[in-house]
Amino acid sequence: MTVKIGIIGLGYWGPNLVRNFAQATGGQLLAVSDLDEGRRNRIAAQYPTIQCFADAEALIHHTDLDAVVIATPINSHYDLAKKALLAGKHVLVEKPLATSAVEVRELMNLAAEKGLLLMVDHTFLYTGAVQKIKELVEQGEIGTLNYFDSTRINLGLFNPNWSVVWDLAVHDLSIFFYITGGKKPVSVSAVGQSHTAMGIEDLAYTTLFFEDGMMAHIASSWISPVKIRKTLIGGSKKMVIYDDVEPTEKIKIYDSGFTVRTPEEMHRWLVDYRFGDIFIPKLEQKEALSGVAHDFIHCIKTGGTPLSNAGLGLQVVAVMEAAQESIRNQGAPVKLSL
Amino acid sequence: MTVKIGIIGLGYWGPNLVRNFAQATGGQLLAVSDLDEGRRNRIAAQYPTIQCFADAEALIHHTDLDAVVIATPINSHYDLAKKALLAGKHVLVEKPLATSAVEVRELMNLAAEKGLLLMVDHTFLYTGAVQKIKELVEQGEIGTLNYFDSTRINLGLFNPNWSVVWDLAVHDLSIFFYITGGKKPVSVSAVGQSHTAMGIEDLAYTTLFFEDGMMAHIASSWISPVKIRKTLIGGSKKMVIYDDVEPTEKIKIYDSGFTVRTPEEMHRWLVDYRFGDIFIPKLEQKEALSGVAHDFIHCIKTGGTPLSNAGLGLQVVAVMEAAQESIRNQGAPVKLSL
Amino acid sequence: MTVKIGIIGLGYWGPNLVRNFAQATGGQLLAVSDLDEGRRNRIAAQYPTIQCFADAEALIHHTDLDAVVIATPINSHYDLAKKALLAGKHVLVEKPLATSAVEVRELMNLAAEKGLLLMVDHTFLYTGAVQKIKELVEQGEIGTLNYFDSTRINLGLFNPNWSVVWDLAVHDLSIFFYITGGKKPVSVSAVGQSHTAMGIEDLAYTTLFFEDGMMAHIASSWISPVKIRKTLIGGSKKMVIYDDVEPTEKIKIYDSGFTVRTPEEMHRWLVDYRFGDIFIPKLEQKEALSGVAHDFIHCIKTGGTPLSNAGLGLQVVAVMEAAQESIRNQGAPVKLSL
Amino acid sequence: MTVKIGIIGLGYWGPNLVRNFAQATGGQLLAVSDLDEGRRNRIAAQYPTIQCFADAEALIHHTDLDAVVIATPINSHYDLAKKALLAGKHVLVEKPLATSAVEVRELMNLAAEKGLLLMVDHTFLYTGAVQKIKELVEQGEIGTLNYFDSTRINLGLFNPNWSVVWDLAVHDLSIFFYITGGKKPVSVSAVGQSHTAMGIEDLAYTTLFFEDGMMAHIASSWISPVKIRKTLIGGSKKMVIYDDVEPTEKIKIYDSGFTVRTPEEMHRWLVDYRFGDIFIPKLEQKEALSGVAHDFIHCIKTGGTPLSNAGLGLQVVAVMEAAQESIRNQGAPVKLSL
Repeated sequence: MTVKIGIIGLGYWGPNLVRNFAQATGGQLLAVSDLDEGRRNRIAAQYPTIQCFADAEALIHHTDLDAVVIATPINSHYDLAKKALLAGKHVLVEKPLATSAVEVRELMNLAAEKGLLLMVDHTFLYTGAVQKIKELVEQGEIGTLNYFDSTRINLGLFNPNWSVVWDLAVHDLSIFFYITGGKKPVSVSAVGQSHTAMGIEDLAYTTLFFEDGMMAHIASSWISPVKIRKTLIGGSKKMVIYDDVEPTEKIKIYDSGFTVRTPEEMHRWLVDYRFGDIFIPKLEQKEALSGVAHDFIHCIKTGGTPLSNAGLGLQVVAVMEAAQESIRNQGAPVKLSL
Repeated sequence: MTVKIGIIGLGYWGPNLVRNFAQATGGQLLAVSDLDEGRRNRIAAQYPTIQCFADAEALIHHTDLDAVVIATPINSHYDLAKKALLAGKHVLVEKPLATSAVEVRELMNLAAEKGLLLMVDHTFLYTGAVQKIKELVEQGEIGTLNYFDSTRINLGLFNPNWSVVWDLAVHDLSIFFYITGGKKPVSVSAVGQSHTAMGIEDLAYTTLFFEDGMMAHIASSWISPVKIRKTLIGGSKKMVIYDDVEPTEKIKIYDSGFTVRTPEEMHRWLVDYRFGDIFIPKLEQKEALSGVAHDFIHCIKTGGTPLSNAGLGLQVVAVMEAAQESIRNQGAPVKLSL
Repeated sequence: MTVKIGIIGLGYWGPNLVRNFAQATGGQLLAVSDLDEGRRNRIAAQYPTIQCFADAEALIHHTDLDAVVIATPINSHYDLAKKALLAGKHVLVEKPLATSAVEVRELMNLAAEKGLLLMVDHTFLYTGAVQKIKELVEQGEIGTLNYFDSTRINLGLFNPNWSVVWDLAVHDLSIFFYITGGKKPVSVSAVGQSHTAMGIEDLAYTTLFFEDGMMAHIASSWISPVKIRKTLIGGSKKMVIYDDVEPTEKIKIYDSGFTVRTPEEMHRWLVDYRFGDIFIPKLEQKEALSGVAHDFIHCIKTGGTPLSNAGLGLQVVAVMEAAQESIRNQGAPVKLSL
Repeated sequence: MTVKIGIIGLGYWGPNLVRNFAQATGGQLLAVSDLDEGRRNRIAAQYPTIQCFADAEALIHHTDLDAVVIATPINSHYDLAKKALLAGKHVLVEKPLATSAVEVRELMNLAAEKGLLLMVDHTFLYTGAVQKIKELVEQGEIGTLNYFDSTRINLGLFNPNWSVVWDLAVHDLSIFFYITGGKKPVSVSAVGQSHTAMGIEDLAYTTLFFEDGMMAHIASSWISPVKIRKTLIGGSKKMVIYDDVEPTEKIKIYDSGFTVRTPEEMHRWLVDYRFGDIFIPKLEQKEALSGVAHDFIHCIKTGGTPLSNAGLGLQVVAVMEAAQESIRNQGAPVKLSL
């Protein structure tokens, strides 16, 4: 069986999806759609056999298709995904899955009812770097997670409708939920600031609280003079730094830590520090988006759950919604029930 | 006139104060005190003419002294400073000035009544790097401040009684208030976590809000595998990165920024980015603590206000107090009236 | 007038030349040739109007063409360039221009006789970074050149026939001759080593000596675990570091130096050091190869001399020839008369 | 038995020797000498029990002393060491051991005749970083050595009498001979340039050739705007980068390399590249000079051979002598018989 696929949206990310689905084993890219004629023509020139639609709904109702990939602006995700599910198609939606937890839950329920796959494209999960961190966490190399601290800042690409949380923190959140296997936050505190008249936050800091006391903190900015993409993951055994700006040495594993002496040993409280070796593992170099395409096709065929599944996408959206609410109240915590 | 000085506390920082006051023009170091005999003996061997006391109060009541420097644990600052002021001495207190805004205000009032100088040692203000930033801000080179974002993390030196806010954020706060000329925050939101049974936060994030919408954010940690000391200062004209880990190139000035087009120009909201030259100024290399000693002596003589004055120290302490309160409530904002 | 162009060789670099000449103003890419059918087909698919030849000579004798670009293996440069000049075509040759100074001189003479342009593609000369250095040197900002020290090392891409000097040092040499306006070396000393049975040097160090005592040193390696591309240019006024591995901050200008005191001032010889500001200029981001294509077309039309002209190409080849001879004699200097 | 020690020369390095020998187990620092009264007084104040001489010969003939440490300018090493050996003292000389191989050999013979220890202080050999490299080489982790490439450049400290080879390359040479167990070079080629009227080279490149074809290359400069201290060590199994400017991560071990396919496999010559994990070992943090002091005392007691022995010092001096000769002839190789 070959999974027959259509892609909606040929803007910034769409052509990358086209290129990867056109080459993906087990799938066949039959159709694309975009309102813009120039975009359609560029794809048509490169892929003469692919059918091009101006209208997304025409693609959705294309009877030959098994699956639809949605790479349109955020606001349209829910509507298009719903239509595609109702039309009996498996659906892969560009991140974020939708604009609220309510929308995501409705889409998940609909997919479940129809026996269809609903997946979200959190591409970072398929990079060699994030795969390596997941492996380190799962194999217990890091120990108990003490903290997660991620900074993703640069200059540029203000989104006129959605804050920097929805544009940048979305990546850190997906990585966090992936490597922890969906560790559930109990509340969120966030602060943010807009430097334009539009009031869309271009700078934000989001904190997640967990039942065991752990914290995750995410700094996001469109107004930094330098590009930083650095995640610190502190464990009871080891600590990891994931620096995505590094061309190849993205992951550094520090055999460093601290131990608290027990009161019996000392009549006052003392901490011992340990500074050890550092290890920089070689990472897989394959294109992450190819992993997304193959996972989507594979899970359609097998009924399996993709790494970047809708449940993870729900956690990401729920946290971002809560963060926006907390930002309006200068960091007042917002309870979550996930 | 020579200012005659005594120093209380010969622990970690005290010997540095001894060395700098021993060499400071216009002052004379007459006495030191510490409960520990070994510490006293080490100073006595190096400075045979300096008088050594076991008892701090004996030093405070030494009639020859004009001024007392207090470099003891945080909890004793208020008490010793009060006694010294009551004994008619000018006072320099190691940072933080005291443990609460109430204490600081009482000391300030007492100093004012007695016509004595009360100063706090925020050493960083006297570094070539912070002096250069202050100069850039004052000369209008940076433009209006858009944000302040500082990270000060490393592995080690847990304080058993005072959180990482009081140990590390204290530096960032003093730098912020200094370069902005005491810009008043209206509220504070902070989050923090302890990884030991003592419950003292070893990881914390503090946000200050201002009336004009500006935000300042400070990340502090004792449990990072790497040492980072990086401050981003975003202005409407230029942006500055202050990286204190760099041996000489600590300050980078980016002629980069963004401009929002007016609605008349465009029917949708758009932002233009500008990436320009970068300038790394040569910095003064003198020891910062020598600047502290000279400022203290100079202001005693002239009745002037030191850079690291008690008013600035009050702002720092008030924010830290509010941050601790906010941490207890997972980031709920705490109003400030400074 | 439109310059009609054909390109010989569609291997590693050829497709980049095709793309840039296809877009170059004032020129028209009419034909390409390569022995390999697959390569020809890939170009034909992308550029349906371009004529494809298997045989290079057929392209050379294509009567519509004004100019031929040669991007074949080094050994064939001389032969193909000679044929093209004899056929009355202007010629652009991929670097190095030929395999010996004798060959280059013969091609230069032939071009002069025929009134044709002979140019070599030293692409680096057209980068924003090298343009900026040239500007700094010409405007006297750097002062008198004290030294040139370039390191270009990485792991990979052994050439089976030509040493690392011909593969990597060729870039540094072209940059050196360009920024100095062709400063003439009087001799060359080089050392090198091969780590394979083929005896082709994969590691080499080349030194140029000049009449005024100046030295230029170039380190080249295919067997370094890390990629370094760093050039230090020391002048009497300032020093420049050109780090081509940096994504944007490639040029750093140091206002640092030293001054020797005159014997009158001191009875022993003394040097004063100066450490000053550092400046990182914003660089042009345009594709360098587009500059090559436009310079070639422009100089054909105007009779002008391109930046990357055959005279410069001759200096580069003459030094590499001398370096190979010196390598055979463990660094014994080889005289040059350029 | 306690080894009774005297130190001659209290200039730049002498006080460090005093501090380390004053604390060294098994030894006792009895006396120091220096022509300068101020220097003597500073030591006397810190170490009241140490005897101070103006005259080096008076110290040398001090009957209580077993051993003499010489930390005077290079030109006086030979003369003072000879006198000390003739006076029956064990001798440790600051690097370089003397100014020519002839001098070193004479001192070595004299020490052998007298049954005394002659040692040279190449401090770098006792650092955690060099110890780790030695261990990696000895345990076969790196495989066969393919090349050694060291760069040691900065701005400053011109020596008025001895070139940058004797000031900086001396360190790289000692490290090379130590980690290879004294691998014998067969010839040396070096080039250098002076930028002052004194004609002392402030910039030099030294290459060592070995019988098996291996090369070692050392770049040395006093006129670089930046400080670089980087050594690349290429082995058949792994490659090491030793970056001494890094505060803690000085050693990086790359599991990278290349393999040449045999002609049977391929009808043309081909190379496969391997890029693997990187490992940054934790290094010992002890002060290197303390290791020198303890090795000297220990070998006096046991009759053993120190790491930084006179034989190694002879190799270093012989190469530097040959390098200076080669520099005078623009890189012409100079034969060595060591």
